[in-house]
Amino acid sequence: MDKLSNLAKFKATCPYLGRTKTSTLRTLCTSASPRFPTVSKLTEKATKCPVMGPALQIRSKQMVAGYASLAGSAEFAKIPEHQGIKPSAADAQKCPHASKALAAARMAEEFAHAKKAKTSSKATAASTSAAAAKSAPAAATGCPFHAASTSEAKPKAASVGGFDYEKFYAEELEKKHQDASYRYFNNINRLANKFPIAHTGNVKDEVEVWCANDYLGMGNNPVVLETMHRTLDTYGHGAGGTRNIAGNTGMHLALEEELASLHRKPAALVFSSCYVANDATLATLGSKLPGCVYFSDSMNHASMIQGMRHSGAKRVIFKHNDLEDLEMKLAQYPKETPKIIAFESVYSMCGSVGPIKEICDLAEQYGALTFLDEVHAVGLYGPRGAGVAEHLDYDIHKAAGQSPDPIKGTIMDRIDIITGTLGKAYGAVGGYIAGSTDFVDMIRSYASGFIFTTSLPPANMAGARASISYQKEYNGDRQLKQLNVRDLKSRFEALDIPVIPGPSHIVPVLVGDAALARHASDTLLAKHNVYVQAINYPTVARGEERLRFTVTPGHNVEQIARLARAVDQTFTELGIKRTSDWRKLGGHAGVGLADPKEVEPIWNDAQLGLLDGTAPAVLHPGQKRVVDQRAVRVTREKFNDLLGPYVEPAAPADVLKAELPLADPTLAASIPAAVEATA
Amino acid sequence: MDKLSNLAKFKATCPYLGRTKTSTLRTLCTSASPRFPTVSKLTEKATKCPVMGPALQIRSKQMVAGYASLAGSAEFAKIPEHQGIKPSAADAQKCPHASKALAAARMAEEFAHAKKAKTSSKATAASTSAAAAKSAPAAATGCPFHAASTSEAKPKAASVGGFDYEKFYAEELEKKHQDASYRYFNNINRLANKFPIAHTGNVKDEVEVWCANDYLGMGNNPVVLETMHRTLDTYGHGAGGTRNIAGNTGMHLALEEELASLHRKPAALVFSSCYVANDATLATLGSKLPGCVYFSDSMNHASMIQGMRHSGAKRVIFKHNDLEDLEMKLAQYPKETPKIIAFESVYSMCGSVGPIKEICDLAEQYGALTFLDEVHAVGLYGPRGAGVAEHLDYDIHKAAGQSPDPIKGTIMDRIDIITGTLGKAYGAVGGYIAGSTDFVDMIRSYASGFIFTTSLPPANMAGARASISYQKEYNGDRQLKQLNVRDLKSRFEALDIPVIPGPSHIVPVLVGDAALARHASDTLLAKHNVYVQAINYPTVARGEERLRFTVTPGHNVEQIARLARAVDQTFTELGIKRTSDWRKLGGHAGVGLADPKEVEPIWNDAQLGLLDGTAPAVLHPGQKRVVDQRAVRVTREKFNDLLGPYVEPAAPADVLKAELPLADPTLAASIPAAVEATA
Repeated sequence: MDKLSNLAKFKATCPYLGRTKTSTLRTLCTSASPRFPTVSKLTEKATKCPVMGPALQIRSKQMVAGYASLAGSAEFAKIPEHQGIKPSAADAQKCPHASKALAAARMAEEFAHAKKAKTSSKATAASTSAAAAKSAPAAATGCPFHAASTSEAKPKAASVGGFDYEKFYAEELEKKHQDASYRYFNNINRLANKFPIAHTGNVKDEVEVWCANDYLGMGNNPVVLETMHRTLDTYGHGAGGTRNIAGNTGMHLALEEELASLHRKPAALVFSSCYVANDATLATLGSKLPGCVYFSDSMNHASMIQGMRHSGAKRVIFKHNDLEDLEMKLAQYPKETPKIIAFESVYSMCGSVGPIKEICDLAEQYGALTFLDEVHAVGLYGPRGAGVAEHLDYDIHKAAGQSPDPIKGTIMDRIDIITGTLGKAYGAVGGYIAGSTDFVDMIRSYASGFIFTTSLPPANMAGARASISYQKEYNGDRQLKQLNVRDLKSRFEALDIPVIPGPSHIVPVLVGDAALARHASDTLLAKHNVYVQAINYPTVARGEERLRFTVTPGHNVEQIARLARAVDQTFTELGIKRTSDWRKLGGHAGVGLADPKEVEPIWNDAQLGLLDGTAPAVLHPGQKRVVDQRAVRVTREKFNDLLGPYVEPAAPADVLKAELPLADPTLAASIPAAVEATA
Repeated sequence: MDKLSNLAKFKATCPYLGRTKTSTLRTLCTSASPRFPTVSKLTEKATKCPVMGPALQIRSKQMVAGYASLAGSAEFAKIPEHQGIKPSAADAQKCPHASKALAAARMAEEFAHAKKAKTSSKATAASTSAAAAKSAPAAATGCPFHAASTSEAKPKAASVGGFDYEKFYAEELEKKHQDASYRYFNNINRLANKFPIAHTGNVKDEVEVWCANDYLGMGNNPVVLETMHRTLDTYGHGAGGTRNIAGNTGMHLALEEELASLHRKPAALVFSSCYVANDATLATLGSKLPGCVYFSDSMNHASMIQGMRHSGAKRVIFKHNDLEDLEMKLAQYPKETPKIIAFESVYSMCGSVGPIKEICDLAEQYGALTFLDEVHAVGLYGPRGAGVAEHLDYDIHKAAGQSPDPIKGTIMDRIDIITGTLGKAYGAVGGYIAGSTDFVDMIRSYASGFIFTTSLPPANMAGARASISYQKEYNGDRQLKQLNVRDLKSRFEALDIPVIPGPSHIVPVLVGDAALARHASDTLLAKHNVYVQAINYPTVARGEERLRFTVTPGHNVEQIARLARAVDQTFTELGIKRTSDWRKLGGHAGVGLADPKEVEPIWNDAQLGLLDGTAPAVLHPGQKRVVDQRAVRVTREKFNDLLGPYVEPAAPADVLKAELPLADPTLAASIPAAVEATA
């Protein structure tokens, strides 16, 4: 997408591009070279350019180890040879334009890659693309035809005797390339009306998304979008200020009340993201509580690690989910020392689940606060979607309905601080904390990352609240998601594909090598229209690289079956180890262990409605996903009520009543009794 | 708003509320007491409750020093006396329910305040309200009528021998109350169709907003909202993942390209907010660059201070805008030592402007990087809204049109790193950095706060891009804003109101006392329907508390004139020092200095179009704000082009072509040739 829209820029600086018609260039760019079918005619031409030629040559070597790990790059390297040109990389380095050519290489890479996205792969190093495209003028300074027009784009030279910052950046990036941890972002545009389908940088190139964290597809729920459209029309886009200065709206307050009620806590507070919520809260608590000691699970998310670091407080790391190790470490401090046990419910990259009840026991015994990150659980667990802590007392919470009051003795009540996100299962944006009134008020009053930032837009807050409200009322999405997860896991198991075992909705498939994981991801995209991102260091440990699949209630049975076959084929094609291979090696990352522990899924058969026949039906091709009409109605009424009580029934109609009616027949009609969204 | 929606909760726990009909309660709550007309009948009744009575009595004393500093609280204190009850605060403390009563006092405060919002004041401690309302059951445990029903809501007791966390939170909050830095958030809902009008917690209670950072009113620009509606329908709400995993869309890439082009830099990168952009970028740079030293202006924003702290690098603070002090400090380090000078263009709380050119000179001389925060300047300065750095070469940048290429030797080109926000003049959400390709790529690859967070929603990104594009094309909003700023400043000057002098659009009026500043803010809201937040510690230094006015192109001349009169009256009524008073005291915070320096505004007469008659016309009451049709057209075409080039003209129509047409007559018709938005 960027490449062709950048064409105008290239045309202005390159005499060849400048004198060639756009339509011709498009044809060249989208037609395969007859001799080298995985590269475009345009790329082939570029190899003859005095700048692009050496650049492409150098880059093609790097590409083999990089994301462009498909057939193209190998064939690509043959081009100059075929042309009778044999510039070596060393020759290119000797060329006076070598350093510029290296910069130009990025652009070349893009051309090659854009082509590949069209014909064989969907991967586009899109962000890099935009940056690379912009470096095109710099690259072109090596070209004898147009040195003059582009000299201003040279990177700023280091001042004489000063530190060379640009060289430093390049070296830091080179490290990433060297260990294959450099990231190329795929351009993925998830289509609301075609969920779980997205288009790539090419709007006509559609792929199935298998790794997004819009876990329930709430990003396209009709009552969410209706609420957002209405709020946007009423209050405009941005909040216009910090919460303290003009940026505190009824939408923010209502959302916080909804969140507090969700977790049955007295108060909640919304942040820009849950990264910020974790960072700001842990940094503030640890720096304020005198002599505070953190006890941190070794698999905690980066945001929690940063927050604890930023607090300056002592941090003791305990082994992942290891209660004995935690207790041994807690016991080393006096009971009166302020302590915080920071952990997660669902660990998102491996799918393991924290022993919440047992950690609460230890916390009470040793006088520690509990800080539970439910980011990958809210919306997905519990009868109202409040997370794993709610799920552990499923029947009690179900019986209590939508009461906001704490239920004494429940695990959710015993957790002091819950953090969650609006950006995953709720399909929105932002993060939050929930806890006691004074705790929340203290963070509100002292956390720099909360105080000094523009609050999130009212429309997003209203949309997030609608999503939470809907999911509080409707259990079917959560159930269907778990049924689909079970389906995929069992298919993978039958095919000897190494799923890292766990009780949650996460389906991590072990690959165990960074380049191979990326290669598998590229192959699935190129050959099967399946988008699943490779998860490499630093998100997971080196040697534990994986593909991480997320299955939603919007994926149908045929898509799930096709995915399993595609992964199976790809494993065969690339020679990736199967579960049985890991077993022969003694097991790795929980896969293929000699004596595996039986893992019980968090959602049991009864909760899924499998015992009484109330389980939701899985989707078949062509079927539409059900939107629960009662949950839509409750959610819509809440939104209307937000402004309702202050509008006197007898008062004359004003602009707000017109725009946010208590009961608008038009809007009610827009979602008919049996509402269905596209699956 | 919250108070009445929380009524159901109160009714469940209080026997009086429980047996009273909601309609009756609403009448009681909204009717003034005949004897004490500034409090409601319901509040009067509450004084007779065994819990609420003492609580209200204690709280009424605190309220005098607090935000509720208006007539109501004085009259309120008289109620028990009139009733023949004379409980002293000391008596109340002796009561066994005292501590709970104090907690209940928060709720009482809310009742009193909600009433006041209805009749005399617009201030609502709304966030606190939500929290306080939730603490009502806890408060009610002191009540003999319903101790049983609410015991589960008591704060978790400290485990025996353990640290008392709840007590600690309460103490930290008490510190804030003691020094009057505790913040009560006003509930402000800015109405898109009535800009600059907002409603408070009561939808019918409208106020003029004079302190929002939606500096140009772009939050309600029609092309922005149109773009967002279309994107929302196409791509849904949330991004669904980090930039690396399913959350990297064409909207993000296009926005980053727009930003890079705005600043004529090779690359840009978007973050959740500019707080995060500053924090993450400075933390990453300082920790990566070997032996890096920061040189930080003493007035830098909290986000920059946090980022530098988090980096662990040495931080040398130089006096605000003091080049001699900066040079002296730079000279103490070898030239080869990596150095970063971190500063701002417009300092938002005092309105001063950094000496950008001179700092570039020093940076080159001493081998330092320049890091410039243009958060309060982007959209507002320069011929395309790129900020003060662009403005300093106004004619050169104007002549270069919309070319994205760097212009060698310009100040904007000499700045290495520019950071900006999408949440203020662009009326959106998010923050960004712009700089060299490798710099941006390095931050993209290493900054934890960028990598591990869900990206912002596509609709917000599309809206932000539309806003930037519109402002790049249209200079009129910027000019009119500055004309209005000049108008207000000169009116204040004529009235001896102490404006802290500065060359920017910020209009800070010195009050010099925290309680007085809040009192002034409350009075303006209550008596004049003017919402301007008091700016107290920690946002400004103690003793320099102020009212900070922001004037937009959407404020009309009558509103400006009325504001000046309202501020004048309030200064008289509260006895706040005038410029002449400060002069007698030798001057303070730049006000009333014996020998003031003449301050030239950044926008000169020629740039404002005052010399050639091209200046935009100021608005008169009833007039509509102009929306520039050409800028709308360019912006809309860019949005269509985002998907256009990949849609082959001859290809069959698909869903995207239907939803994002290259030229949609319906949409085009929705904004007629002479578009006008409500002023």
